[in-house]
Amino acid sequence: MRKKSTVSGSLGQLLSRFSLAFLLLTAHASLAPAQVSFKVTTLVEDLDQPWGLAFLPTGEMLITEKSGQLRLVKDGSLDPRPLQGLPDVYVLGQGGLLDIILHPDYSENNLIYISYSAGNPMAIGTEVARARLNLKEHRLDDVQVVFTMQPKLYSPYHFGSRLLFDDAGYLYITLGERGRKEGSQDLTNHQGAVIRLHDDGAIPQDNPFVHGQKGEKPAIYSYGHRNVQGIALHPKTRAIWTHEHGPRGGDEVNILKRGANYGWPIITYGIDYDGSVISNETRKEGMEQPVLHWTPSIAPCGMMFYTGNQFPEWKGSLFVGALAKRHLRRIEFDADGQVLQQELLLEELRERIRDVRQGPDGLIYILTDSRNGQLLRLENN
Amino acid sequence: MRKKSTVSGSLGQLLSRFSLAFLLLTAHASLAPAQVSFKVTTLVEDLDQPWGLAFLPTGEMLITEKSGQLRLVKDGSLDPRPLQGLPDVYVLGQGGLLDIILHPDYSENNLIYISYSAGNPMAIGTEVARARLNLKEHRLDDVQVVFTMQPKLYSPYHFGSRLLFDDAGYLYITLGERGRKEGSQDLTNHQGAVIRLHDDGAIPQDNPFVHGQKGEKPAIYSYGHRNVQGIALHPKTRAIWTHEHGPRGGDEVNILKRGANYGWPIITYGIDYDGSVISNETRKEGMEQPVLHWTPSIAPCGMMFYTGNQFPEWKGSLFVGALAKRHLRRIEFDADGQVLQQELLLEELRERIRDVRQGPDGLIYILTDSRNGQLLRLENN
Repeated sequence: MRKKSTVSGSLGQLLSRFSLAFLLLTAHASLAPAQVSFKVTTLVEDLDQPWGLAFLPTGEMLITEKSGQLRLVKDGSLDPRPLQGLPDVYVLGQGGLLDIILHPDYSENNLIYISYSAGNPMAIGTEVARARLNLKEHRLDDVQVVFTMQPKLYSPYHFGSRLLFDDAGYLYITLGERGRKEGSQDLTNHQGAVIRLHDDGAIPQDNPFVHGQKGEKPAIYSYGHRNVQGIALHPKTRAIWTHEHGPRGGDEVNILKRGANYGWPIITYGIDYDGSVISNETRKEGMEQPVLHWTPSIAPCGMMFYTGNQFPEWKGSLFVGALAKRHLRRIEFDADGQVLQQELLLEELRERIRDVRQGPDGLIYILTDSRNGQLLRLENN
Repeated sequence: MRKKSTVSGSLGQLLSRFSLAFLLLTAHASLAPAQVSFKVTTLVEDLDQPWGLAFLPTGEMLITEKSGQLRLVKDGSLDPRPLQGLPDVYVLGQGGLLDIILHPDYSENNLIYISYSAGNPMAIGTEVARARLNLKEHRLDDVQVVFTMQPKLYSPYHFGSRLLFDDAGYLYITLGERGRKEGSQDLTNHQGAVIRLHDDGAIPQDNPFVHGQKGEKPAIYSYGHRNVQGIALHPKTRAIWTHEHGPRGGDEVNILKRGANYGWPIITYGIDYDGSVISNETRKEGMEQPVLHWTPSIAPCGMMFYTGNQFPEWKGSLFVGALAKRHLRRIEFDADGQVLQQELLLEELRERIRDVRQGPDGLIYILTDSRNGQLLRLENN
């Protein structure tokens, strides 16, 4: 079933733009006028907290549900049967079945990768498994765990995680510090790190901490993150961009550098949930500065650079889902890569947006975070 | 078996006094010269993380072990059989079987009170039970839970708890904020509160928040605490004194006032474990100031005002056990109740001190926090 609603230039959106002026200012960006007319189509409903979305070259879509099911969308409709053969996912707190991506050579090997929380309430952590998608039998075969976050902890918080392959075929896994922020500056654990691996889980010998003498985890690519739930390749520079949740304020968009320290919790633009100060410092020698940051928090999840032709005015824009602030955020950059403006889309839906992806058709696909989650598509009017 | 060791005026103690000068200064106190000669006798060994100690009028001693056993010491020796009939203790993280006290009318009713963590890994919290001690059958009878901390949480941290009866026969239960500091300023939960009850668990109608209109918990007597593991009645003023753990630094000694807010985490003299700032504020309108505070943390546990005749020079001194700093701390006050000096005892033992109590004999009893814990007694030479 499909619903249509034209939202461009709606009064609600107009008002919301004004009401969010303060927010845009804190992000050092100017207000965006309505530029593009689009409509929103509901493709799938009744998803249980959908988290990640992947497009198969054969036209199907795979959707993860946080509660542990992997779902298939075929010919525009949701297959009622979850796929079988998943690894053991332990759903707890912010954990569950999380992201999904395809292997760069999926067409040849049918390999997919999923991230999820695994273990038990006493010791739980993020894992990543790869498996062969067997569409014919509606199941995963040859499931193999390629990464296990260490240590597993008694904590329901900050599992990350998003997955990405770069142009060279390396797998990146974004993690969180599991709510134990003192772990984020400690390279002997995986807390608050972004991980870099070969596609089979092997450690690349050119990882920054491979030769560390103090027990540094060799899988770590960057650290000092809080909870990273967005990663994307910049279409032009091919640099890896991420965003991460700040505590209350201080959400960041970062450009990943090999071996770099992103400063949490020593430097932050945020404050803690109880209003107490985490740090007086927002910058420090040897720690990276974000491209932009949001205070108060929008709670970013999912990120995508738009490169399609369906919305020419949006080409090169960064799209980020917002959970707490319930919108789709478009960030436009100037030629120097500085933030030119930010636009808040889909506010009138009042939905927590968990993921945003560009489809092979050049349209924009959205997952809403709800026990009755939806797959939505932005289409040009 | 008994060991003796004379420690007064030892070189180690002398040196340690100098090395701790900075610490004493932060507590605005001067250095104490060696005043009293004493010896330390080991009464009991092989205790599994002993936590609380109570003296029976008939000469026996009861000792709680964090791992869940209640032990009896009779005629100077430890009964190998734990007492039976305890409530269901769930041992997790900083939780387990914690404090023990006698009812003011124990001689008539044989009632004892124990505090402990209860529930399961997903939902655990502090509880207090009272029971009738049946020495003849070596068990507890008529076990009745008189307090259950709400909410039970998925957290291994900050259960408190110490127990005390005041002169009017009210029961006080010291709690922690369960590592969720935002809960400490919220009166609709028990996190970070000191509780006041009738001896049967009923809510006194003169408790400060009994008539709250916003869901305030009526059992709360004071709040804004972090983790309170020491409580004692001042021998002269009869005021209730407590101490609490700061995060890293900012341990406090407080005098309890009805309905008062002790400020955590809005004001603190401490910093977080990762070195980040929790608050810039150390004082605020409407929030209490401590009598003294310790930075860096000594990790105080157990507290007692000495009123005996065995050590006349120590009469009126406050004794506090130190876990992290591994000593017994004596705090001496002047006539105005200002800290005159602090003395560090038993440092050469290098033991975490979990509890300190005055015995009916006027001697000082200590529990060491270890898987091979000891009951020690300070005796005059």
